[in-house]
Amino acid sequence: MAAAVPLSKKFLAEFIGTFWLVLGGCGSAVLAAVFPYAQADANPLGLGFLGVALAFGLTLLTMAYTIGRISGCHINPAVSFGLWASGRFPGSQLLSYVVAQVLGAIVAGGLLYGVASGRAGFELSGSNPLATNGFGAHSPGGYSFWAALIIEVVLTFIFLLVILGSTHRDTFPSMAGVPIGLSLVLIHLISIPVTNTSVNPARSTGVAVWAGGDAMAQLWLFWLAPIVGALLAGWVQRHLLEAGES
Amino acid sequence: MAAAVPLSKKFLAEFIGTFWLVLGGCGSAVLAAVFPYAQADANPLGLGFLGVALAFGLTLLTMAYTIGRISGCHINPAVSFGLWASGRFPGSQLLSYVVAQVLGAIVAGGLLYGVASGRAGFELSGSNPLATNGFGAHSPGGYSFWAALIIEVVLTFIFLLVILGSTHRDTFPSMAGVPIGLSLVLIHLISIPVTNTSVNPARSTGVAVWAGGDAMAQLWLFWLAPIVGALLAGWVQRHLLEAGES
Amino acid sequence: MAAAVPLSKKFLAEFIGTFWLVLGGCGSAVLAAVFPYAQADANPLGLGFLGVALAFGLTLLTMAYTIGRISGCHINPAVSFGLWASGRFPGSQLLSYVVAQVLGAIVAGGLLYGVASGRAGFELSGSNPLATNGFGAHSPGGYSFWAALIIEVVLTFIFLLVILGSTHRDTFPSMAGVPIGLSLVLIHLISIPVTNTSVNPARSTGVAVWAGGDAMAQLWLFWLAPIVGALLAGWVQRHLLEAGES
Amino acid sequence: MAAAVPLSKKFLAEFIGTFWLVLGGCGSAVLAAVFPYAQADANPLGLGFLGVALAFGLTLLTMAYTIGRISGCHINPAVSFGLWASGRFPGSQLLSYVVAQVLGAIVAGGLLYGVASGRAGFELSGSNPLATNGFGAHSPGGYSFWAALIIEVVLTFIFLLVILGSTHRDTFPSMAGVPIGLSLVLIHLISIPVTNTSVNPARSTGVAVWAGGDAMAQLWLFWLAPIVGALLAGWVQRHLLEAGES
Repeated sequence: MAAAVPLSKKFLAEFIGTFWLVLGGCGSAVLAAVFPYAQADANPLGLGFLGVALAFGLTLLTMAYTIGRISGCHINPAVSFGLWASGRFPGSQLLSYVVAQVLGAIVAGGLLYGVASGRAGFELSGSNPLATNGFGAHSPGGYSFWAALIIEVVLTFIFLLVILGSTHRDTFPSMAGVPIGLSLVLIHLISIPVTNTSVNPARSTGVAVWAGGDAMAQLWLFWLAPIVGALLAGWVQRHLLEAGES
Repeated sequence: MAAAVPLSKKFLAEFIGTFWLVLGGCGSAVLAAVFPYAQADANPLGLGFLGVALAFGLTLLTMAYTIGRISGCHINPAVSFGLWASGRFPGSQLLSYVVAQVLGAIVAGGLLYGVASGRAGFELSGSNPLATNGFGAHSPGGYSFWAALIIEVVLTFIFLLVILGSTHRDTFPSMAGVPIGLSLVLIHLISIPVTNTSVNPARSTGVAVWAGGDAMAQLWLFWLAPIVGALLAGWVQRHLLEAGES
Repeated sequence: MAAAVPLSKKFLAEFIGTFWLVLGGCGSAVLAAVFPYAQADANPLGLGFLGVALAFGLTLLTMAYTIGRISGCHINPAVSFGLWASGRFPGSQLLSYVVAQVLGAIVAGGLLYGVASGRAGFELSGSNPLATNGFGAHSPGGYSFWAALIIEVVLTFIFLLVILGSTHRDTFPSMAGVPIGLSLVLIHLISIPVTNTSVNPARSTGVAVWAGGDAMAQLWLFWLAPIVGALLAGWVQRHLLEAGES
Repeated sequence: MAAAVPLSKKFLAEFIGTFWLVLGGCGSAVLAAVFPYAQADANPLGLGFLGVALAFGLTLLTMAYTIGRISGCHINPAVSFGLWASGRFPGSQLLSYVVAQVLGAIVAGGLLYGVASGRAGFELSGSNPLATNGFGAHSPGGYSFWAALIIEVVLTFIFLLVILGSTHRDTFPSMAGVPIGLSLVLIHLISIPVTNTSVNPARSTGVAVWAGGDAMAQLWLFWLAPIVGALLAGWVQRHLLEAGES
């Protein structure tokens, strides 16, 4: 669908969608993962990893039904690359999509920083300030570079297979947003301890630019690994799982 | 749909729906967020913010399929205003809808107060008695007026975009209740610490009238901010995202 | 649907469905709400009320799609009474349905008792052994008889409105199981502290007969209140919300 | 569907799907059930049983929409046996499916082992290393052999009834993945304390081969019990619930 939609509308849709992904996902992590804020040992009310995982996935599920008809709701550069590799997205729009996604993510990161600063005592601190991604000393659970690389490649690989499989023309278009959104919940349930979960370079960038420091220094991995995983998935879908279809 | 439904039925449907939203959302917060009641530090069984967020969203998801065909299931004055701004709801019914919503919310707040009082030791206390909304000293996490204003405007803005986008005639009518309800879950996952989450003036009013005090004094913000966010969304949807559609 | 299905198949379906409701709902409460079993103060791994609420609702959601085409998936005497009051279910089948439901519930309660006994140290204890329902001294949160009566009537009333509304011929039959199942999640999110949540006489009976004592003495309320709420909902649906439809 | 799909594609799909089930389900358990890792008594951020149950079910829900059109998404030998017993799956493909499932599970188990090893201090320990299944001394809650046997048979029996019922030709094909996936969530909500929940011989095998020791010694039960439950369900569905249908 969305064939006749002008690129400017797609740009706006991707901007809003990625804004929502970062505000909702990173926002729930920064504002509500631990509560009361001074009581990290018991966390009687805070969301924990389960609530944050749910929040990330629901940003995608909700946007799929909101902007899907306009832009396809990629809201993630890796998704745009993977769709391109599978032959379902024109390379000529790749740059526009990625720019819109990164800008939306950065504006959300800034807004989140502003809201979080609206209480006495807030400061950027911990190994993952503003819910940034990282490895080694910046892995929430202390995982190595290689563990981070592998998990981000593999999870983005499966993420794209879910997207490509559930939007295949022979399956159910009305339902696709549900498994796609819930696959992002699942990905976070697995990997928050490892890298704080990226699988989305725009999401990583949107908060890293405000947190600065090591979040920027490690950012390259969260562009490289998700895009590699997505390209692999696009190839597997096209040449193995859809081979021989006409 | 619901074209030929008389306004009296819509009134009843909106009354029941908003009653359910406040009973379910605020009810889960008051009765079950912390359990046992005397053990707030550990909260071994209580719902926490995650369970309360889920409850709010499920009130909307369940009512969407229950009264959607009758009244469209706004159950929120901000939604009625936003739909009006987008051109999908007649201004002549605005007042009736808002009155039904506020009455349903107030009856639910009273019933909840009555049930909560049915155990020895219950009293209205804490910064948000009966799950009222607030900022500053009445923000659960101590967030300022400006943080509260911004988050309520932005979250209601996106909430309305989800509603308008997923009920667009080119998307899937059978599914719309799912992303809409889950977007309300997500909104609560982000913002309970900031304002206890309103995005709904009727919900705020329904418990503030029973709690009284500062909940009433701060209530104006939870009419202003959600309606401003909703009007903005109606404008963006109509003039940007749907521009040129016929 | 299910017009030509023989009553014996409906009986079997209702038996299996109610068996699943009690095994899944009460089973998760008894086996997994608190874990490790000796550490109720912190409950680091157990489900808490949120997980138990989810379990109850998922029993209904899953069975709706499993036996809905056979028996309509009432798996609750109050639902059968409410459907009868709304004019959608023949009174001649009421007794058969209720008997099947109660038998399925009792078998599940017995099986659960057997499995729970399969670890050293298990005993029936606490205010709600085997996840029985109760009020006063047997309300998990110490709520009075009147609070219990009101909450059970009101929640079953709305539960039936959700069932009747989302299965209305003008809405989406493929989706109905989702809001219906999730409304049962929501009902538990609100009311586990009050009565341990019944809204289903068969569910209450299925564990009370094994727990005995006060669970049996208070059982009458969990037949009376849900059925009253359901009958009210059937009347409201038929004479107010569907008035004038042909 | 999937009638003309070559067996090699089905093999690949089942391999990927079962890989995802073990990586997502066991991965969330191993990496994120308890967090921080040194703080098992309070578990302020970790997923607990609720998050792990959700993860297992979401692997199945997401794969149902991803590979359902290719292989039917069994990703579980018990499901393949149950579908065969119900007359819906050709026995000639049973072995291929089971081999693909077991291989995918073993590769996932190995990858998970590698990632988990990527932090200082990781070691295989506890009663269920790498989220293996077990009974007696290897039951998380200390349940006996008989409790384990009964719960695995009964839960797989109902699991297959949900699969067979919600994929019946007279129900809603677009929705089937939802109740099927959520039934696996529910099954875990009930039975993680009893056996760490198998209902899937491939899932049990995929981690047991890496954990070794008693996990291998007890593995036979997690082949026997799920397959017995599945065969019973296939028989009940075919000869009782579908009797007389043509």
